[in-house]
Amino acid sequence: MTLLADLLSTVFERRYRLGRTGRRDDRPIEALTTELIGAAGEASGLTVARNLLGRYAEMDDDAKLAFFHHLARDMNIDAIRVRQALEAYAAEQTKSTYRNFMQAAEPPRQELIRRLNQVPGATGALVAMRADLLRLSQGADALRALDLDFRHLFASWFNRGFLVLRPINWHSPAFILDKIIAYEAVHQIDSWDDLRRRLEPTDRRCFAFFHPAMPDEPLIFVEVALTRGVPGSIQGLLAESRQMIEAEEADTAVFYSISNCQEGLASISFGNSLIKQVAADLSVEAPGLETFVTLSPIPGFANWLADQDISVRPDDTERLRSLAAHYLLDVKRPDGLPLDPVARFHLGNGAVLHQVHAQANLSDKGLEQSKGTMVNYLYDFGKVAQNLEGFAVEHIIAASQEVRALAAAAQKAAA
Amino acid sequence: MTLLADLLSTVFERRYRLGRTGRRDDRPIEALTTELIGAAGEASGLTVARNLLGRYAEMDDDAKLAFFHHLARDMNIDAIRVRQALEAYAAEQTKSTYRNFMQAAEPPRQELIRRLNQVPGATGALVAMRADLLRLSQGADALRALDLDFRHLFASWFNRGFLVLRPINWHSPAFILDKIIAYEAVHQIDSWDDLRRRLEPTDRRCFAFFHPAMPDEPLIFVEVALTRGVPGSIQGLLAESRQMIEAEEADTAVFYSISNCQEGLASISFGNSLIKQVAADLSVEAPGLETFVTLSPIPGFANWLADQDISVRPDDTERLRSLAAHYLLDVKRPDGLPLDPVARFHLGNGAVLHQVHAQANLSDKGLEQSKGTMVNYLYDFGKVAQNLEGFAVEHIIAASQEVRALAAAAQKAAA
Amino acid sequence: MTLLADLLSTVFERRYRLGRTGRRDDRPIEALTTELIGAAGEASGLTVARNLLGRYAEMDDDAKLAFFHHLARDMNIDAIRVRQALEAYAAEQTKSTYRNFMQAAEPPRQELIRRLNQVPGATGALVAMRADLLRLSQGADALRALDLDFRHLFASWFNRGFLVLRPINWHSPAFILDKIIAYEAVHQIDSWDDLRRRLEPTDRRCFAFFHPAMPDEPLIFVEVALTRGVPGSIQGLLAESRQMIEAEEADTAVFYSISNCQEGLASISFGNSLIKQVAADLSVEAPGLETFVTLSPIPGFANWLADQDISVRPDDTERLRSLAAHYLLDVKRPDGLPLDPVARFHLGNGAVLHQVHAQANLSDKGLEQSKGTMVNYLYDFGKVAQNLEGFAVEHIIAASQEVRALAAAAQKAAA
Amino acid sequence: MTLLADLLSTVFERRYRLGRTGRRDDRPIEALTTELIGAAGEASGLTVARNLLGRYAEMDDDAKLAFFHHLARDMNIDAIRVRQALEAYAAEQTKSTYRNFMQAAEPPRQELIRRLNQVPGATGALVAMRADLLRLSQGADALRALDLDFRHLFASWFNRGFLVLRPINWHSPAFILDKIIAYEAVHQIDSWDDLRRRLEPTDRRCFAFFHPAMPDEPLIFVEVALTRGVPGSIQGLLAESRQMIEAEEADTAVFYSISNCQEGLASISFGNSLIKQVAADLSVEAPGLETFVTLSPIPGFANWLADQDISVRPDDTERLRSLAAHYLLDVKRPDGLPLDPVARFHLGNGAVLHQVHAQANLSDKGLEQSKGTMVNYLYDFGKVAQNLEGFAVEHIIAASQEVRALAAAAQKAAA
Repeated sequence: MTLLADLLSTVFERRYRLGRTGRRDDRPIEALTTELIGAAGEASGLTVARNLLGRYAEMDDDAKLAFFHHLARDMNIDAIRVRQALEAYAAEQTKSTYRNFMQAAEPPRQELIRRLNQVPGATGALVAMRADLLRLSQGADALRALDLDFRHLFASWFNRGFLVLRPINWHSPAFILDKIIAYEAVHQIDSWDDLRRRLEPTDRRCFAFFHPAMPDEPLIFVEVALTRGVPGSIQGLLAESRQMIEAEEADTAVFYSISNCQEGLASISFGNSLIKQVAADLSVEAPGLETFVTLSPIPGFANWLADQDISVRPDDTERLRSLAAHYLLDVKRPDGLPLDPVARFHLGNGAVLHQVHAQANLSDKGLEQSKGTMVNYLYDFGKVAQNLEGFAVEHIIAASQEVRALAAAAQKAAA
Repeated sequence: MTLLADLLSTVFERRYRLGRTGRRDDRPIEALTTELIGAAGEASGLTVARNLLGRYAEMDDDAKLAFFHHLARDMNIDAIRVRQALEAYAAEQTKSTYRNFMQAAEPPRQELIRRLNQVPGATGALVAMRADLLRLSQGADALRALDLDFRHLFASWFNRGFLVLRPINWHSPAFILDKIIAYEAVHQIDSWDDLRRRLEPTDRRCFAFFHPAMPDEPLIFVEVALTRGVPGSIQGLLAESRQMIEAEEADTAVFYSISNCQEGLASISFGNSLIKQVAADLSVEAPGLETFVTLSPIPGFANWLADQDISVRPDDTERLRSLAAHYLLDVKRPDGLPLDPVARFHLGNGAVLHQVHAQANLSDKGLEQSKGTMVNYLYDFGKVAQNLEGFAVEHIIAASQEVRALAAAAQKAAA
Repeated sequence: MTLLADLLSTVFERRYRLGRTGRRDDRPIEALTTELIGAAGEASGLTVARNLLGRYAEMDDDAKLAFFHHLARDMNIDAIRVRQALEAYAAEQTKSTYRNFMQAAEPPRQELIRRLNQVPGATGALVAMRADLLRLSQGADALRALDLDFRHLFASWFNRGFLVLRPINWHSPAFILDKIIAYEAVHQIDSWDDLRRRLEPTDRRCFAFFHPAMPDEPLIFVEVALTRGVPGSIQGLLAESRQMIEAEEADTAVFYSISNCQEGLASISFGNSLIKQVAADLSVEAPGLETFVTLSPIPGFANWLADQDISVRPDDTERLRSLAAHYLLDVKRPDGLPLDPVARFHLGNGAVLHQVHAQANLSDKGLEQSKGTMVNYLYDFGKVAQNLEGFAVEHIIAASQEVRALAAAAQKAAA
Repeated sequence: MTLLADLLSTVFERRYRLGRTGRRDDRPIEALTTELIGAAGEASGLTVARNLLGRYAEMDDDAKLAFFHHLARDMNIDAIRVRQALEAYAAEQTKSTYRNFMQAAEPPRQELIRRLNQVPGATGALVAMRADLLRLSQGADALRALDLDFRHLFASWFNRGFLVLRPINWHSPAFILDKIIAYEAVHQIDSWDDLRRRLEPTDRRCFAFFHPAMPDEPLIFVEVALTRGVPGSIQGLLAESRQMIEAEEADTAVFYSISNCQEGLASISFGNSLIKQVAADLSVEAPGLETFVTLSPIPGFANWLADQDISVRPDDTERLRSLAAHYLLDVKRPDGLPLDPVARFHLGNGAVLHQVHAQANLSDKGLEQSKGTMVNYLYDFGKVAQNLEGFAVEHIIAASQEVRALAAAAQKAAA
């Protein structure tokens, strides 16, 4: 990652930091946005864009909300103009009528955001801006529509083809590791020593996606354990006293923690690509790997049990496994997809519901959310496309015989 | 630049080259495009995208044309659906009606191109695809409309904020220098020795913009000479026998050649940003620089003279200068902008028409295109924004007194 | 030249680690040393050298001691052979007689160490070997002579011209920072948070020397505070509550901690070069710096007071300052140099004894060693050469008027 | 560890170039050398060393010769002092007597050279200084003795463990490629296009050793062709019309050109290490490689034929092969080693004389030196140590049956 940091931070980050404007421009914010999307804005907009971002950076939440409402209201599409352009295009399909339609159908705020992004280093600022928007929009329809514009642009900018996968290890820069500690969302990292235990041993790996325009910020990262056999508990997997192995001895790669880092990139999905690419890279490094599997929480399980008024003794492991299998396989949202969000993610990536474990996460959080249960989702890359298709189109959940049997037992017990 | 090469070529280029597909997918191309934009395409599309790009790479021109017509025809917007979505949105502005409108108003081929771009290394392939499209479209309206979609996406992807400026010098990798030789469009580079003369001396510089997803390909580059005073001829500027100076001694930076490298990025404008950023960087390196100026061809001059049936003796330098000044200042296109394309570029960037020289380019090309004349456009960064505004809005050409006087003399002579 | 970029890391470190021998060679260690310095050893010695280093790595202290005695005894110069070669050379000075003398006068163990160093990565192993030797030699003359050979070679290998200065900061790799924590010898670093406070603020710097053949190991590092004015206490300097300043605002650079990292490089002096080069680099970065000064302990002060049966009340700051000045200026070793080792180091580098402070280090260690006193040594680079000469040749201590006056007061009080 | 990335380039090369002295020191050169090796020289010598190197750089050959004679004469060992120190050491072996002997037995000019090397960038200057010495010494015994001191130090500094192997390819910086063209000593490179043909194809490789303190200068490089089968002529090997192959298809790596780059490093042997390490690296990259072989000139062959008054028809290929085999196997120097220098090099590395070819190099140089013959030396790394030992100790030449038979035929014919 230092290469990236070096490269881009040398190149743009340090030289032209945001807000190194000469003079401050104190006109109303609306004057700046209007100038920026105006005729001269494409060529000369850099200074205005820098000023706008600088001004935004100093705003409090009220001012930010006002700014967002300005974008949502004054930089929206004009339905009348769209309708005219559409009719002209429908009447005669030429380059010119098409161009007019394209321009009318895209709200000016999209061009505004693109022009703000001219400023080197702006991409991160815009991601933070969207995080503000999500935080402040509170369900207001106009702001949620504005968010769709951010999301549309970000999906294009953060396209998989632009991302760079980097290993994170004990040779990574401290400031990046700092962020790994901060962003870890599944199994909290308590200290630098804890972090080191997840990075330095020969049977541990960590990888993150970066975007070249935000080289100091991981977008998403995954922590991996290399093991012999599929593990059944997180405490076993992370035990300091475990028998460490060399990468070459491992037959299984366990994705035991995946964390998104940027709230401003919500709904821009990286996880699927990350898992596939990490699996591909690990296969080259450790050709003995045959199984790629997660060790995942079942975050909605305890709530669901409570909703169903089901109580289970913590040490009744069979009953817990059975209920968890049933919950994952059979309990659905109105749209027919699984209620459990982690299940939706991995099954939506084409994974198989492979095994369910009880007493697998004895931390406070693990007991509280999942009654101590965990699940392995298996990535069989030969079948991923087919599983994914079945899940996306027909909501079919790929599951092992064992999990199916467990779920069936739960239903029988309930009957 | 090796950093970049290293970074990204290590990271994506080498590991996952285009077309490293497992199995070849021989279904009709339409089946692939349909699958790629389909429901499962976002998550599983990598293989399909890779296949599609691989298939495209093997097509002849007829097949490519058929492919483009498929995109233009079958992946266009549906006017009826757009109209419905628009009316629904006009009736009630919710997140949901806005999302439906956005989706209807964007032709599916844009999403297709974005999904093709998931493949690491695809960006360059898509740029080449657009170069094919421009070459093959021959004015066909449907294809020119399709081109607007490419251009729309590329303007977003090749946003100034994503570009990286790199010096090109005798320490640059040979394969990059190779491309500099190939792409130089203004003053041909005859050999590696000629190239070295433009890169190695203390009074020469070269800079290029790169995009992180195409690290092996310069997008645009500029060659700069550091001088004392504003030069009046290219042969003097490039003379091997000239007195070389140290960068610290220079008071003037001369942009004497700007070349776009990628036909597939036509109309995506980098030149203005390049000049500004290079000027900023040079100012740090050589604080003695006070003047930033071009030494530019007047490529339409000879043709215009011929059209006007004006003949001038090659050694009548005053007449040539006078006519050239008049041509640049007064001869316009129907839209009111200067006829000369290089003038449009620099004046559109906010430069001033500073000086006109005769016998300034005695090469065959220089005599043929410009009757040996050249022009200095001056970049006074304190006035660039104002010049640019005047030019963009009112077509006012900023010019020195001297050039105005020359042009007036030509008109008087003509009268 | 990024050629050398990945260079050390990629090239040697990872690819050819020590001990990747094919077969183990179990002959007696003396057979290996003999073969290695033998006729074929220069060309073929890599395998033998690798084996020898591998064997050494597995030895316990007894075996190591035996190995050192073998080198000291069996690989020493042969006085008879030296005498003969010397006489032959004295009789006739030819290339051949000179070569014979050179060979005879150098003990074979020097060539042995050089041939061990053929193995990529061996340099660090040899430095560690010397650390063992120093630890185990216990004053044995033969081993202390052997140490002179190590030291002779290391002085050549770790020549200033081969060292690389690197900033250490929050962007440095974690494993390097780990070592900074471990090696800090003056003011202990308690935690990663403490480390960060010494690296990340705008008014803190850290620099280390590295050797290209040991890229993972700092050799020596210095911690620097940028301040306004010369500081009088370490607790003030390191206070979290201090007013941080920007580098440009600083007029003084304070070298407040210098730590050697490698016991195996004892007596190979880097500190002088480090201070000079860091001062030169800081001057470029922060041109406002006018004063380069240390804030140093007086480690022998408390002991000397005890030896003299002098007792001072901890809050009698004037008396403490006066006695400390006297101790530094007037108390000498038999060879005429100051008794205090830190004073010897800085005065030997050409610094001036600038100011003495009481209650300047209230840590346990500071009170115990130095009764809380500290001293500023001033580096005035225009006078360093002259001071150094005076100190080296005539043992003259450069000191400020103020310090002289303090010392005089002490002597008067004692009289 | 990208720490070391920018490291050499950024850090020393550019920042502190040689000769950035403040004031010029115009004292006699002897005053400077005396000061530099004096008491204060170790700590303060940087400025003096810089001055000395700067002065040297401006000297003409006469002044250089005078400087070398000064070193040879005034900075030599003092036989009387050595004798005294030796007797003291012989009488009592203590650390102190050993140190005194070491100091007396090493001529002060060695310490002088080490202190000159303190200046960053000095290593290259000292290598160039030795090249001057070799050129100017003309057999003078005192200067040839001085050269032994340079060589002694360089052997230590350019120890294999300090060298870095780098691939040279079309991604290498142009200035390095420039030097490859200049330094190629075996098969001249005519142009950049010729160079590219040796670097870019999938079946070509080139590697060079670098020293971290001279990162801009290759020390030695080897050009390699990957082939199927052992090639019998250089024109076939280099033919543009040849069938290129992928690295994975190759079973043989042919070292067809090895060039030393630095005259100042004469007699410091890198070739053996280079061949071994390149073979090891290629084996990783192209696991199909089974045979490592050279295609080498026989530079002394034509001269020897002339000395023997043997004339052969150029097309009498069998006779030529037979005579060449005989020349290589049987014709020796007085010391018992082969007369042919290339044979001495490869046999001294443990290679086997594998095959002899006629009409194998039809270039002017090839015909003139070797009558068009060439030879393959085979590196069988399992037997290299044994061959090397036999050659070094007993002058046994390892050769194939076929070559032995050819040589025998020549002797029979001569009988």
